[in-house]
Amino acid sequence: MTNATITTPAEREIRIERVFDAPIARVWRAFTDPELVAQWWGRGNKLEIVRMEVERGGHWRFVEHGPEGDHGFEGRYREVTPMERVVQTFEWDGMPGHVAVETAEFTDLGDGRTKVTSTSLFHTAEERDGMLNSGMEIGLNESYAALDELLARLP
Amino acid sequence: MTNATITTPAEREIRIERVFDAPIARVWRAFTDPELVAQWWGRGNKLEIVRMEVERGGHWRFVEHGPEGDHGFEGRYREVTPMERVVQTFEWDGMPGHVAVETAEFTDLGDGRTKVTSTSLFHTAEERDGMLNSGMEIGLNESYAALDELLARLP
Repeated sequence: MTNATITTPAEREIRIERVFDAPIARVWRAFTDPELVAQWWGRGNKLEIVRMEVERGGHWRFVEHGPEGDHGFEGRYREVTPMERVVQTFEWDGMPGHVAVETAEFTDLGDGRTKVTSTSLFHTAEERDGMLNSGMEIGLNESYAALDELLARLP
Repeated sequence: MTNATITTPAEREIRIERVFDAPIARVWRAFTDPELVAQWWGRGNKLEIVRMEVERGGHWRFVEHGPEGDHGFEGRYREVTPMERVVQTFEWDGMPGHVAVETAEFTDLGDGRTKVTSTSLFHTAEERDGMLNSGMEIGLNESYAALDELLARLP
């Protein structure tokens, strides 16, 4: 399994880099089409897309139905620039009112592969560290592995 | 008109202090009862309380119908400790995805007056400065003047 590269470029930031073996248009679609997101974001768990309005000011809310219970996540889109960048907020129901800003940037590597760089900015270093210690790395790599499989079977 | 004291204790923070001539229980009620909030938060403009679930994890959304158009505001409660503290996020529809965390603390001054200290933490210094330059001070003092009047007529 390919692992994502996780770094901490600044005190309140987490950066995640991952290369996908698919052209940028397909990767963009997998990140922004609700029916496709439902197939990988939840790491194999059933993912309910309650709301996903992919435009500036739009809201999103997902509920992951896992073996150990349900987890809700939500936020709002700050910027949506097709095939380039999505900026959105991210909040987990388990820690309401703790909000990170996620910037996902899509780079065409020119050889049929696409790099996705996702940078999260937290209000405090403690919130950043809490996220790093939450097991996010395992979940993230599971989601991205599911995304690899989805990208391979998409036309 | 009594003006609030506005300071910037840290690079990403705004602190607002204001004393109200009313006991803490009455001030708490005016900040947390939707029917009362509707009477002062909008500075005399019609304020629609779309949602106001005053508990940890609850959401709030207000729409102010002013002479120059409508403005939506929303967020989520992180902590609600009666007569002591409310921590909630704050986001204006005009800048979606830019979220501040507001901590309002209520202090009984022991002489029938109550101090409310509200501290906002932004993700960046630029967002903090944008808020300072938005005319917030005028709007804030108008809201608090409306709150003074409401507190004076509440039983």
